[in-house]
Amino acid sequence: MSKPSIPKGTRDFGPQVMARRNWMFDAMRGAFERFGFQPIETPAMENLSTLTGKYGEEGDQLIFRILNNGDYLAKADASALAAHDAKALTPSISKKALRYDLTVPFARFVVMSRNDLHFPFRRYAMANVWRGDRPGKGRYQEFTQCDADIIGTDSLLCELELVELFHAVLSALNVPNYRIMMNDRRVLSGLAKAWGAEEQVGELLVALDKLDKIGPAGVDAELVQRGLGDQARNGVKSLVEVTQIADPFEQLHAVGEMLAADETALAGLHDLKWLLGQVRAAGVPQEALCFDVTLARGLDYYTGGIFEVRVVDSPVGSICGGGRYADLTGIFGWPGMSGVGISFGADRIYDVLSHFDAFPEGLEVSIDVMICRLDEDDAAVAHDLGALRLLRAAGLKAEMYPDAAKLKKQMKFAADRNVPWVMLSGTAEREQGKFTLKNMASGEQVVVDAAGAIDAIRSAI
Amino acid sequence: MSKPSIPKGTRDFGPQVMARRNWMFDAMRGAFERFGFQPIETPAMENLSTLTGKYGEEGDQLIFRILNNGDYLAKADASALAAHDAKALTPSISKKALRYDLTVPFARFVVMSRNDLHFPFRRYAMANVWRGDRPGKGRYQEFTQCDADIIGTDSLLCELELVELFHAVLSALNVPNYRIMMNDRRVLSGLAKAWGAEEQVGELLVALDKLDKIGPAGVDAELVQRGLGDQARNGVKSLVEVTQIADPFEQLHAVGEMLAADETALAGLHDLKWLLGQVRAAGVPQEALCFDVTLARGLDYYTGGIFEVRVVDSPVGSICGGGRYADLTGIFGWPGMSGVGISFGADRIYDVLSHFDAFPEGLEVSIDVMICRLDEDDAAVAHDLGALRLLRAAGLKAEMYPDAAKLKKQMKFAADRNVPWVMLSGTAEREQGKFTLKNMASGEQVVVDAAGAIDAIRSAI
Repeated sequence: MSKPSIPKGTRDFGPQVMARRNWMFDAMRGAFERFGFQPIETPAMENLSTLTGKYGEEGDQLIFRILNNGDYLAKADASALAAHDAKALTPSISKKALRYDLTVPFARFVVMSRNDLHFPFRRYAMANVWRGDRPGKGRYQEFTQCDADIIGTDSLLCELELVELFHAVLSALNVPNYRIMMNDRRVLSGLAKAWGAEEQVGELLVALDKLDKIGPAGVDAELVQRGLGDQARNGVKSLVEVTQIADPFEQLHAVGEMLAADETALAGLHDLKWLLGQVRAAGVPQEALCFDVTLARGLDYYTGGIFEVRVVDSPVGSICGGGRYADLTGIFGWPGMSGVGISFGADRIYDVLSHFDAFPEGLEVSIDVMICRLDEDDAAVAHDLGALRLLRAAGLKAEMYPDAAKLKKQMKFAADRNVPWVMLSGTAEREQGKFTLKNMASGEQVVVDAAGAIDAIRSAI
Repeated sequence: MSKPSIPKGTRDFGPQVMARRNWMFDAMRGAFERFGFQPIETPAMENLSTLTGKYGEEGDQLIFRILNNGDYLAKADASALAAHDAKALTPSISKKALRYDLTVPFARFVVMSRNDLHFPFRRYAMANVWRGDRPGKGRYQEFTQCDADIIGTDSLLCELELVELFHAVLSALNVPNYRIMMNDRRVLSGLAKAWGAEEQVGELLVALDKLDKIGPAGVDAELVQRGLGDQARNGVKSLVEVTQIADPFEQLHAVGEMLAADETALAGLHDLKWLLGQVRAAGVPQEALCFDVTLARGLDYYTGGIFEVRVVDSPVGSICGGGRYADLTGIFGWPGMSGVGISFGADRIYDVLSHFDAFPEGLEVSIDVMICRLDEDDAAVAHDLGALRLLRAAGLKAEMYPDAAKLKKQMKFAADRNVPWVMLSGTAEREQGKFTLKNMASGEQVVVDAAGAIDAIRSAI
């Protein structure tokens, strides 16, 4: 038998990592629910047709497809099989796939559940998604997204709520030096129009989206490669200059001057201005919120405000993203439902918190108390088990060593697992219905009954 | 575009179902942790080689395989392809699969993480598993298992702990009339030996395991079909009679008489007797715990005590199972690690609670309070948002209607979602920094500031 392993880009999470992850998820869940979001869950397996064509050609290739069960070749496309054409063969041997994000399944869910939901509908979801990406720093094949969306209204108040939610979650998680970057797709479209590149706005966005990674010269090369003209290239250069203006309101003004009298684009600018003002009034630190006119976000479905969160000097890329979509459910036959949503990349946030050593203390504690065993006769078992049951009934996390091994071994086991309290009883204590309770940090010992132990442990938590 | 759908045997969970499921998971997590179990998580995707050969031939066929990404036909087995032999082709076009249960991944995890863990190791996991089973009542293709295992000790205390955990979880979940069935594989092996069917013990167990579904006559037919002789058939008949004895200790005695002087089997009986006595002392109701000598459990890896939980008059089959395995990690190269584990079938428990209408009240409440909006001018927005932020800072689940729609519409929205409190302010209230706070159940209204609203809502929760 070969040494066991797990697929590349996947991970096992042991108790220590789980304690940190669960702390993160609890904090997120708490914030989501305080903001009125309700949980939903969709299957990990979706019909392939639900997912394909939603993430661009590149995304499509990264979707994990599930082989039909049984004799899947019986109904396989014979000509594709003969031609060894994998791409053409796939639809006939695979009907299901693993979800690629939580947004497309959410849109499908909203359409299928429309009669049971009340709109505007606020939902959150915290679940794994799968992508056949090349694994790397902050990039996994199985990872967790935590999404909050409001669908069924175009009120700008929702954008404000979601920016406040970014702040609520990230500050609760102790994420240091985060920057919430904001832009608006309407502004970008307006600029493309002003530069005579209205027909090439998609190409322009893809190039601009890479500014962060490849710099201004790289973006310029990309623009040339994608067939954009001098006017757009010069426009992008000026735009990069605008990003150097320190005050976001002055930046907005400068962009406005590049737009001429484009009503839609100016409405986008106006909304950004309102948001910046409101968010500051909400107590979000001034430096945490930035207008970034070069922010594009890759996904097709955004139509208004777009967001991205980065951490200064972070080892990974953006940790959150999101934006307004005017017509997300249209792809499933229900047009005109406007919504806005954001997504927290839990694994990247974990990586950031690890990098900056920003997890709170105390998460390493496994259980509250362990009972060590000195004897295994019926009376000792009854005495120890009786106390164990009382400790648990009091809500404490408690266990008992499974046998009367050498005390040194049992104490080492407790110490290795950061157990803060240990209880044990010899004949003398048992005769009085008592235990020696030891504080593992201080070494202090007291003789108490189970109720006394519960009081002592509780008062220390 | 076709109407969206989801794969058969999978489900969407909306907010109402999620509230119930999360209540269940919270109760389970609480009990697991009070019993000293720590969470771990393994990937949904495992290497195919980790899973195949672990669940019998029938199980193997139900594993969902993931198609390799990219041009998967490039490395496909040419002769299998030419022969249209799906089974032979699979290993060359699929390297990964979805986990089938949580036990085999746990064994793999323990072997891979052995240097980071302290034994005996108690872990719990609550996660989805996938099986290509024909969907039916209580049977899904994607469902949630909640497992607790103790590995690294053969102490019988662990069996006792897990039976107590069954009781702790099921009573916390209000599961009515549950029966924890216990047996021991050593007893079954001893009986097979006594009936001269030692070599056919696997066949015997498979047949016996179906008693619940197909009755004594069905089992007898199955025994014939599986080639078991008259001695075993008569033995099974007597065994079924033994199950009619009301008192479990008398049943144990009767089984003992069938075993002759088989030391291993008698040790199994002795352990069952000890467990029955101890569990009663633990306060588990007498009727909740049964010895069932015909209980076999399908899985190969059990070697000692086995458990199954059923609910009287339930619409679904067993809701929990488990048992002792002397050598689970041996399949991954680390022999001799004894452990014992149990699994709660969350979806079936959900189905039982729904059937008996046993979920607690109050889970239908979406949020604590909603702010209705009468005006949208800057002053009104600032007034409403200020209160919204205070409500959330106080830990309440709060939202604000996204625009100043007709009040009737806003109130209907709140009522539809079972929101217990609504706040609103016209010019008169706003000038005093106040709101009208309405109790949606009683219709009572008071005029208060945000702090007053928080006090009123909190004291009602």
